[in-house]
Parts: sequence; C-alpha cells; structure tokens
Amino acid sequence: MTFSDDVLGRARVKDTDQLQTFYDDLGKHETVALWTVANEIEPWFPQPVSVPMLWRYDDLRPLVLESLDLVKADDAGRRVVALVNPERKDISAAVGLLYTGLQVMGPGEFMTAHRHMAAALRFVVEGQGAWTVVDGQKLRVGPGDFAITPNHAWHEHGNEGTDGPVIWQDGLDIPLVNALDAGFYEVHPNLYQEQGKVINSSLLTHGAGQLRPFGFEDGWTKPYSPLFAYPWEQTYAALQNAARASDGSPYDGIILEYANPKTGGSVMPTMSAHMQLLQPGLRTKAHRHTGSVIYNVAKGSGYSVIAGRRFDWKQGDIFCVPSWAWHEHANLSASDDACLFSFNDFPVMRSLTFWREEAYPDNDGHQTTN
Amino acid sequence: MTFSDDVLGRARVKDTDQLQTFYDDLGKHETVALWTVANEIEPWFPQPVSVPMLWRYDDLRPLVLESLDLVKADDAGRRVVALVNPERKDISAAVGLLYTGLQVMGPGEFMTAHRHMAAALRFVVEGQGAWTVVDGQKLRVGPGDFAITPNHAWHEHGNEGTDGPVIWQDGLDIPLVNALDAGFYEVHPNLYQEQGKVINSSLLTHGAGQLRPFGFEDGWTKPYSPLFAYPWEQTYAALQNAARASDGSPYDGIILEYANPKTGGSVMPTMSAHMQLLQPGLRTKAHRHTGSVIYNVAKGSGYSVIAGRRFDWKQGDIFCVPSWAWHEHANLSASDDACLFSFNDFPVMRSLTFWREEAYPDNDGHQTTN
Amino acid sequence: MTFSDDVLGRARVKDTDQLQTFYDDLGKHETVALWTVANEIEPWFPQPVSVPMLWRYDDLRPLVLESLDLVKADDAGRRVVALVNPERKDISAAVGLLYTGLQVMGPGEFMTAHRHMAAALRFVVEGQGAWTVVDGQKLRVGPGDFAITPNHAWHEHGNEGTDGPVIWQDGLDIPLVNALDAGFYEVHPNLYQEQGKVINSSLLTHGAGQLRPFGFEDGWTKPYSPLFAYPWEQTYAALQNAARASDGSPYDGIILEYANPKTGGSVMPTMSAHMQLLQPGLRTKAHRHTGSVIYNVAKGSGYSVIAGRRFDWKQGDIFCVPSWAWHEHANLSASDDACLFSFNDFPVMRSLTFWREEAYPDNDGHQTTN
Amino acid sequence: MTFSDDVLGRARVKDTDQLQTFYDDLGKHETVALWTVANEIEPWFPQPVSVPMLWRYDDLRPLVLESLDLVKADDAGRRVVALVNPERKDISAAVGLLYTGLQVMGPGEFMTAHRHMAAALRFVVEGQGAWTVVDGQKLRVGPGDFAITPNHAWHEHGNEGTDGPVIWQDGLDIPLVNALDAGFYEVHPNLYQEQGKVINSSLLTHGAGQLRPFGFEDGWTKPYSPLFAYPWEQTYAALQNAARASDGSPYDGIILEYANPKTGGSVMPTMSAHMQLLQPGLRTKAHRHTGSVIYNVAKGSGYSVIAGRRFDWKQGDIFCVPSWAWHEHANLSASDDACLFSFNDFPVMRSLTFWREEAYPDNDGHQTTN
Repeated sequence: MTFSDDVLGRARVKDTDQLQTFYDDLGKHETVALWTVANEIEPWFPQPVSVPMLWRYDDLRPLVLESLDLVKADDAGRRVVALVNPERKDISAAVGLLYTGLQVMGPGEFMTAHRHMAAALRFVVEGQGAWTVVDGQKLRVGPGDFAITPNHAWHEHGNEGTDGPVIWQDGLDIPLVNALDAGFYEVHPNLYQEQGKVINSSLLTHGAGQLRPFGFEDGWTKPYSPLFAYPWEQTYAALQNAARASDGSPYDGIILEYANPKTGGSVMPTMSAHMQLLQPGLRTKAHRHTGSVIYNVAKGSGYSVIAGRRFDWKQGDIFCVPSWAWHEHANLSASDDACLFSFNDFPVMRSLTFWREEAYPDNDGHQTTN
Repeated sequence: MTFSDDVLGRARVKDTDQLQTFYDDLGKHETVALWTVANEIEPWFPQPVSVPMLWRYDDLRPLVLESLDLVKADDAGRRVVALVNPERKDISAAVGLLYTGLQVMGPGEFMTAHRHMAAALRFVVEGQGAWTVVDGQKLRVGPGDFAITPNHAWHEHGNEGTDGPVIWQDGLDIPLVNALDAGFYEVHPNLYQEQGKVINSSLLTHGAGQLRPFGFEDGWTKPYSPLFAYPWEQTYAALQNAARASDGSPYDGIILEYANPKTGGSVMPTMSAHMQLLQPGLRTKAHRHTGSVIYNVAKGSGYSVIAGRRFDWKQGDIFCVPSWAWHEHANLSASDDACLFSFNDFPVMRSLTFWREEAYPDNDGHQTTN
Repeated sequence: MTFSDDVLGRARVKDTDQLQTFYDDLGKHETVALWTVANEIEPWFPQPVSVPMLWRYDDLRPLVLESLDLVKADDAGRRVVALVNPERKDISAAVGLLYTGLQVMGPGEFMTAHRHMAAALRFVVEGQGAWTVVDGQKLRVGPGDFAITPNHAWHEHGNEGTDGPVIWQDGLDIPLVNALDAGFYEVHPNLYQEQGKVINSSLLTHGAGQLRPFGFEDGWTKPYSPLFAYPWEQTYAALQNAARASDGSPYDGIILEYANPKTGGSVMPTMSAHMQLLQPGLRTKAHRHTGSVIYNVAKGSGYSVIAGRRFDWKQGDIFCVPSWAWHEHANLSASDDACLFSFNDFPVMRSLTFWREEAYPDNDGHQTTN
Repeated sequence: MTFSDDVLGRARVKDTDQLQTFYDDLGKHETVALWTVANEIEPWFPQPVSVPMLWRYDDLRPLVLESLDLVKADDAGRRVVALVNPERKDISAAVGLLYTGLQVMGPGEFMTAHRHMAAALRFVVEGQGAWTVVDGQKLRVGPGDFAITPNHAWHEHGNEGTDGPVIWQDGLDIPLVNALDAGFYEVHPNLYQEQGKVINSSLLTHGAGQLRPFGFEDGWTKPYSPLFAYPWEQTYAALQNAARASDGSPYDGIILEYANPKTGGSVMPTMSAHMQLLQPGLRTKAHRHTGSVIYNVAKGSGYSVIAGRRFDWKQGDIFCVPSWAWHEHANLSASDDACLFSFNDFPVMRSLTFWREEAYPDNDGHQTTN
C-alpha cells in the first residue's frame, strides 16, 4: 500500500498567484483554505512527534541522588527528575501526552499535601520506608509496588525509613490535561491531611478484588479504584499463576492489568497500568496500536525492538513506545524471569474510540532491526 | 403505624346481592372485580409464604449418607436431599424462589453432563476429592470453597477421592425460573464434556480479582463471573484483613460478597453469595430487607433471631431468612470466629428495583424473642 | 427431538418399599429426595400454567360500565374489572406474572393517591378527559395514549370530561412483585398530591426523545423513563415513518418499543410496551420466546394464531401469549392498518438472562391451526 | 484568592550556578528538573492558548463563495474555509482541540468518499439540495439541520440543487485526534459508496427517539447515534415545547442536546452538540466550565460576553468560547427568538472526568465588560 497524496481523495491543489492572493485575504479574517493543510492534519496514519527512547537507570540514578543535596523537597514542590522526549520539550512529555519522572525522598523527609486535575501513579524502584497519604489513607509502599493518586485526590508523600533514600517513578497525564485546557491545582488548606488510623486500609478492605465488602465500604461512586496500592508480592504471584494456565499474549507474554475491583476496568479513567512476565528465553511477536506506553523494567534484562530499533534494558531502565510504533520484547536470560511494569493512556483511547491494533504481518512477526 | 384495610385508599366495598350477581357475570368472562382481591394482592408490606427454618446438619447428614446406598447417582440425575420450606412444597423452594439441597458423591463416583436455565452454586461442606467441570473447565473444590455453575453452562460433577463421600450444598434459582416460565434443560449430546488440560484454570487466571488478563483471556462477554471457584483460604484471609480495617456492617459483621472480577458485580445475574465473619462474642443488630437468604454455617456456633424466633446453629447447619423478616446474628463463643456462608436473590431485587432495607428501630436494634 | 424422561441424565429412580421409607424419613425433616421432583421442576422447556386467552371488548365493556353504578371508585380503591387467566386465579394474573384490567372513571370522578411496589402502565381505550398525576405531574391522556406509573411513584387518576366515562387498560406486575415477596403499599398522607402548574410537562420536556434537556431537568437518576406519557399521534406517525424505511420484523411487522429517552432502554425495569403496525393484508411468521405478553387491539381487525389456535380480534379486544408459545399475527383487511398495543415482562427476561427466542421452523413459518 | 507561586506547595527553587550545572547534566540525558517547569505545567487553573473569537458571516461568505471558482472540490478534497484561532495556527484549531470550517458545494457538485479517525458534524447554514451519504445512507439536509459523520464512517457529500450553492459548517475533532496520535485516513476503494434505496432512512427509523425499533434495526452496537440527521423543524418545535414547561438553564436559556436515542448520551464519543433558544429579551447569567465550544447563530441577533469582552452576533456568525472562560448570552430583540447552535468536546471532559463548572459569583451573575 502506498500513501501518495497525489490521488483523488486527497488535497492536491496547485499553487497559483490568484490563490496566493486568496490565501492572503483569508488570513486577514483568521481563516485558511483547508486544502493547504488538509493532508498534514489528516494523515494516512498516526504521525507521533515523540520518538522511542530508553533512559538507563545507571545514568539517571546518580543525578537523582545528587538532587537530594541540591534542593529541598519543599522548595521543589516535589524533588523529581523528569524524563522528557527530545521532541516534546514544549509540553514536558515523555511520550505522547504522558509525563514521567523519578522522585527521590531522603530518610525522614516528607512534603506538603496538594491536589490537581492530573492523575498520578507511582511505581517504587528502590528503597524502604516510602509512604503516601491519598485522600486521608496512609499507604506504605516498597519496591515493585504500584500505587495510584487519582485526579483531584489530596496527596502527600514521605520516607519514614532511616537507611536511605527512596526512589519511585511518577507517571502523570499532565500533558493530556493541558492539551484539553483542564488543569487545576490546589495546595491543601492545612498543608497536611488528617490521616485515618489504619495503614493500607484500602488494601485490607479491597485487596482481594474478587471479594467485595457488602454493607460497609461499598458505597463507592468515584470513577477510580478504591484500591490505592497493589503490592509486588500479589502481582508477581498472579503472573506466575496465570502462566500455569496460559501462554498469554503473543505480543506481551503473561500480562496483567491492574484493575478497579469495583468495575473490572482500569484503575483511573485516563491511565492504566500493567505488569508483564517474560518467561526465560521468551521473544514476543511485534504489534502496534494507538496509545502511548512508558515501561519500567521491574526485573531481569532483555531488549525491545521499537520501530525497527533495538533497545537493550535491565532492571530500573525506563523506555517508551509512541503510538502506532511496532514493538516486541525479548527476555535474554535462559533461566530468569523478566518483568516489565508499564503505564499508558489506553483508557483514553477506549473512551474516545481511538483504539486500533494490528499484528506485524511479515517475517513471522519480527521486525528487522536497522 | 396501623395497617387497617378499612380506610380511604384501600378496597372496602361491602358485599351485596346485586354485587354477587355481578361477580358471577364477571366470572363467566374470566374476569373478577379487582376490589375483591385488591387488598390481598397489594399488601401493605411483603407477606412471604415461606417461614423461617433451620435444618440441623446432625439430622440431615445421616439421611444424605443413607441415600448413597439407596440410589445410583446416574439414576437420580443428581443424588440430592432437597430442603423444602413446609409452606412451599408446591414449588420445592427452601425460601422465596430459591432452592437448596445437600448433594453427596461417593469415592470414584461421577455423573453425566447437562445444562439448564437455572443457575447453580455449590458450597462444599465436607470431604476431599470433589470436582466439577463447568463449560469444559475442571475445578477441584474442598471444604469451604464456593463454586458457580452459571445458567446454560454445561456441568458435571464427581468425587475423585478415595477416602469417603463428599457432601456439598447446592443452591439454585429453580423456583424463580419456573415462576417466570423460563425453564430449559438439556442432556449433553456426548454425555460428558471435553475437558481443558489445566485444572482450576479460571482460578489461576482470574483468581486475583484486582489483576486482569490483558490481550489474552480478556474477551469475556458472558453475564457471569469468569472465575468459577473461590477457595476458602483466600476468602477467610480476606475476611481477616477486612476486620483489621473496619468493624463491618452493624447487621452482619465483616461480610464480603463473592464478586465477578470483570464487573465488580455479583457472580451471576440471579443469585449472589456472601461469606461473613462474626468475631468472638459479636452480636449484630437486626434489620430486614427484601430478598430471601439461605445460610450455611461454615465455622463456629451461635444463633440468629429471625422474625422474633431464636435459631441456634453450629457448623453445617442450614437456615433461611424470608423476605422482609427481621434478623440478627450472634457468635456465642468468646474466643472463636464464626463464619456464615449465604446465598440470596439480591441481584434480582436490584435489577428489578425491588430492594428495600430498614434497621430495627427499637430496643437498641435487638428483637425480643418469643 | 424427543423429550423422554427415561434417559441417562434425567431422574429415573424406580420406587421401592425401602425408598418409600426413606422418603418418609426425609419428610420428617422438611426435606425431599430431589429425584422425586427433579423432572418436574427442571422441565425440558417452559411449562406455563397460563393458557392463551382472548377477552372480547364487546363482552367486557357492558360489565365495565355496569360497575360505574355498582361501586364508588373510592370504595373500590380503583374501579377495575380484572382479566384473570383461568389457570392463574390463585395469583390474579392474566398471563405469566402480569396483571391486567379495565378501569372505568365517570365524568368528574377522581380518586385518592397511593403508591406501591408494583409498577403500572395505562393504555387508553375510550373516552375523553382522563388524567393522571404521577409524582406530582399532571398528564392528560386520550385514546391510544400510553402512560406509565413507575413503582413507588405516587399516583392518582380522574376524569375531567363531561361527556361520558373513560376506560383504560391497566397493566401491572403485581404477580411478579408478590412472587418475589416484595409488595409494599402506601396511601398518600394528604390523600391527594400537590400538582405542578404545567400539564404534560414531561411530554413537553422529554417528548422528543432524541433531544434532551441540558443544564435543566437533566439530573434524572431514577430507573425509569422521565417521559410519563406517549401520545398516540406521535406513536402512529413513527410507525408510518418506520414503514417507509423497513419491512420491520418478520414476526411482528413494524414494531416500536416505547423507550426511556435517558437510556434508550425500556420505560420501566420490569415491564416494557410496544405498538406495532400490521399493514393491510400482512401475515407475519410465527416465533416463540420466553416472556409473557398482553395485547390490546388499538386499531383494525385480524387474528393471531397462538399455540396452534386461532384467535380473531378487533379494536378493543385483549389477548395474551404465554411464555414459549408459538404466535403469529394477521391483518385481515386489504385496505386498513391494524395496530396492536402490547406490554410484557421482557425487561425481566433480559435482566435475569432468561431471554430465548426461536423461529417456527416448518411450513414456511406458519403454524397449522387445530 | 490569590494565585502566587511563591508559597509552600509550589516550586520555588532559586537558581544557582551549581544548579545550572546540574540542569546541564540533566539535559545530556534527556531529562529536566521538574521544579523548573512544574508551576507552568501544573497551573492553578486552565490556561488555554486559544482566545475568544467571533467570525462574521458577512466577512466569510464572500470568501467562501469565491473559492467555488478558485478550486475544484475534488482537487481540494473538500472545498472548505477553515476558521483558525490566531493562537492555534500550529494545529489548525478554532478553539481548544476543535476544528471548524465553512464548506461550499455548487449545484450538481459532488465529491469522492473517504473516512478518517476524526469525527465530523455538519450544521447547514444556507442553500437547498445538500446531501451526504454516511455509511451507505443518503441524507438530505437543509438550513438548520444537524448531521453527524462518526469516526471511521465512510462519507461523501454533494449538492443536488440547481439554484445555487450550499454552505454548511463542518465541525471536527481533528486537533484532538492528532494530539493523541490517533489519526487515520482512507480513500474509498471504489471512490463512491453504494447507497441504500431509502433517503433519510435513519430519520424515518430512529427519528422519534422515544420509540425504538424492536426486532428490526435494533442490533446497534456502534458507539454513536444510529440517527444521523436531526431536522431543524423538530428541533425548533422541541425548544418551543420545552419553553412551555421550564425556564431552562440560567446560563443558556432553553438548551437541548442532540442525543443518541440508543443510549440517551451524546451523538458521538468525542463531540456533542446543542441548540438553544434565547427568548426575546433574555439575558443569561455567566458561568464557566472546562471544555471548548463553537457556536453558530442559527436565528436572530444578540451578543455574548466572553471573558469580559462583548461579541455582537447575528445569524450565520460563528464564535467560540475557550475552556474555563466566563460567558453569558443575550437576545437583543424584544420580539424575536434567537437560537444558537453549538458543538463542543464535553463528552471528552466527561469520559476523562475533567468536567468542572462554576457560576459567576459577582454582580448578579453578569461580567463587567472592558
């Protein structure tokens, strides 16, 4: 299939002096001739500005730790090194309309509470002692744990450990919120929230998703998960169980989506997250889909081929797949599991009916790398 | 509040000879005067025909075991002793439009496959080795496990143990299906289903309800849970977790509903099930609601007061609460948990908008027993 | 296909003296052997107790009018002649779990307000001047109009005409509500409702279902239609429009369902209603489905074949089709339309996943009448 | 309320040489310090790039008509003058992520079929003879009619009139689709669609939204309205009916949303449309909300105050309200109705839970113009 714009059905008006005069007249009234921009704004297929990227944890970790001394958390608001796609510096996006960064908190450090229209999620990379208070609920999170801060929920974070810093990855839909002119931000009137007495109460109450409270804690009407934290142990056990019953997806191996137990849907309306297991030696097939994805290597090492380019990764590395880019994954170890955490804007694609997906048609499903 | 029918707004036509003649004329055309039946068919509040009942396991168990020798399972279709409300023998209901029975299978025994419009659920009471194949998936279930057989799903059961019989409680909506003239029944054309290779595959795949498969096993469109079995261990652990975060419901203690992880709703569209934990010494308050409930004592001992009458129970006993009957529960032990499994027709009440609930207003929420 | 119960997969235990003793023992504990009732309570296909019936308006009208003089409306509660299936006198049902009757109100007559768990609908048969106040909204309704009184909505009726009585058909789900032990009834504390100033306000506001109020009258959360009356003129025009674009259903001709404009679903959660157009000379094919239906001939004349029996009808006649009975319709006129109003319990069938449908397989889709 | 960024809870790190070095190091790894951009990307409230605009039809009409001679429709793809916000020339948006333009077709002119991920809607401004074929259905549309072309639906347009050109307004979500990297475009393989025989069939079948086909044309599973055209006559009549029952919204007068009769929701998942009636002399109060709106004056004359600036308008004029801008409307005529057609991205705001709204708190709800 060729994608020439010089066909019937595409704009192919040749420029003339007369038209140039007309275009000038249009410009005087804040208008343009559609046909001068049509092919650009209605492309044959998605033309993401973002490019595939991999950020090595070995590169970022020293910088993240350096920031501990350079700025006070409360001066920074949050002490975060943001990963920015070279082509999206204008909107501080890592890929598509997604933002990500690495946040660091020293032992005993904590920050004030705020809330905003952007939704946030956390994936803990290293360190013991991290906590977050979301809508008054205190959660303790450790490496491999996934937690959410839904939009407009008050939140504040800290590190109650004594041994060292905590580093977690933040994921937010800030660029999406801004693209839709919907950003709001508030500092908590008392600077800090009042906290409930029970730590991890949402996990205790809703942490077995197939059993729901009845007659108590069951009047949930918010559009996001009442379960705010998903511990690594349960997640990893679920992956291993699923692997005993299925080969999983040809493109992703055993891949589970963190779900809202009240609906079975995604944890928040704008972002979803997954954890996937690539069994030893597994090499998946390539596919592409609308929607942008940011990965964090939770375990092991391997590589992904994205848009024809190979990116080797190991634990802690972060990489991204732009919309409609072919991608496939491989676990290079013959003996050890590899796990990829990822988050995405698929709920937006589904709500707005923009989801499309296709398998790589050639070469037994594998891209040729260049 | 008084409920006299001799008020404006109720039917209160006095009989006359002239009216009697008129009624006779109406009868000739298969009609009646509404006012002669109105107060009966539109009562002030529900008037269940069913009465509260408790069936002691000590009474039923010998009879159930006796049936092992008396009839062959395949001759019986299923070897089940059905518990029938004394007032609902016409429709073989235990309470309301719910059916229940105790099914027994000897070691090595198994039966042919069938399906029907009635939905079924199982709660295992005693014995090792029970299995059921539901829509081609083989499940192994043990004491305290809950399993479903959704309507129109092929199913067949057996006992692969060697030590002794298995007894489980069946719950079905047979009287509901019949009241709505919707009953269908089919024997499997091959008598037995083909089985998938992996035992308990739905549990492996969907058993962590807050993590759902993505890109595999995720195209579920059926109106019931893809998770067919809920093991006792997970259920009991979830109760204990929830008890650390909440006092639960004033009427039920810590009570969890088995949920469809795809929707967060009930496991099937016509019946739901719960497991509840009554902590040592707990005495709940009374409430009443529309909808009928059948209980099985999963653990411990205690009593319930139903419509002013006290019913003492211990493990294995089965009792029922008719619609709109006041009820409250008590754990008599100061040291041990009591657990009540129950199933009900609440999904029907909710779908049809018939759900109503109220707290017992007097005596600090406790009925006086008579 | 044969439906013998003497096959593997059905209960086929032969009686013995020993078993008889066992059955007696079971009876002492309010239990029965399932196999003694299994084939009856799990039939091969629905076995409705109700039989097909047709009530001639020529027969009923004089009786209905006679009641005007015999009882005062307020003494009767409602002055209604109820149509009762000869086999369902126990529950005052016309067919399945549906109730119907003809209500008559003399000029200037009106009655007190009440509400109940049973949902009601009205189809006006004859007379000018009828009104109903539903949840404080006054509606005026004339022949061919359809109106709803959702469950638990306050309602009161009257006839403000001067020329003569009004007769309308009532349809209620009383037997369903009672079967589920969910009946409640209340007389209005003030006997009469306060009324809004605008007549037919729901029709003015929601009567063009494809255009919905925004920023006013749009916070509707009730589980039924905010549109309480559907005028004949709009309904008949919609039928004629649809007939210009389609042949409609092979079983029903052009058939439209009265819809809740807030959801596109049925007007109430337990009952739905249709109006169908049989064009001159049309003879539909037979089908059968779960769910019970009561028809009122709104226009014209013709016949229906129900379970192999022909029922001839003309305007005003009422007939019923039990669940799973084959049925087909014919308009006997070569020049005039026939219209059938009907109501049913299909929403219940759908909510509970009991809906099944099949086409008559033989004789080009037509039953042979006996 | 002040919105200073120099408070605890906002980023307020002072620049130092040491930090500048650190920022340089971050840049080498495609990262930035969040605190250097945080206040900008997480604003206190929405900061739309788009500005309020009004385009006069008197200005645009001559240019639109001039284009008839300047370019052939098939060379242009579509012959459209696009209205572009002066601040959003980069993405050809009129406001927010919405595109709009005026399309003109000469008598007898027609164009090839295509489809794309962007959803489109039409509002006919002037001229007789316009038609569009959407997914094989031919629709005829005239002044005041509203029509939709859902995403991925094949469509082609033409003018079968003989008297003169047709001008309609196009509204599309092109900038939204591109922002989310989801744009696809296809030319119809046969250049033109096969058409159904019945003109306006969706209108005939679904045009009375409160009555839905049953057993035919009822298997609709697409995420948009099966009704493709909404005629002016019905819309205007519905406005007048609603005005008899209500004063409507304080901010918009009588305002109706074009609805999907299958769901009661918006016509498409990404854009909704309204028609509102400002009765003679009406002056509404100001409010603001997230979401962008483009208006077309369908009838009459008046003015709107947007973000403190007055824009006078008359029939045919187009204006826009950016997200979170205060706005209020006035009909200047003491005798004639004014009607405003508008379309918006509210469905996106709702799906993504970005909807916020508030009333203007001062001066009895009216802005002071500057």
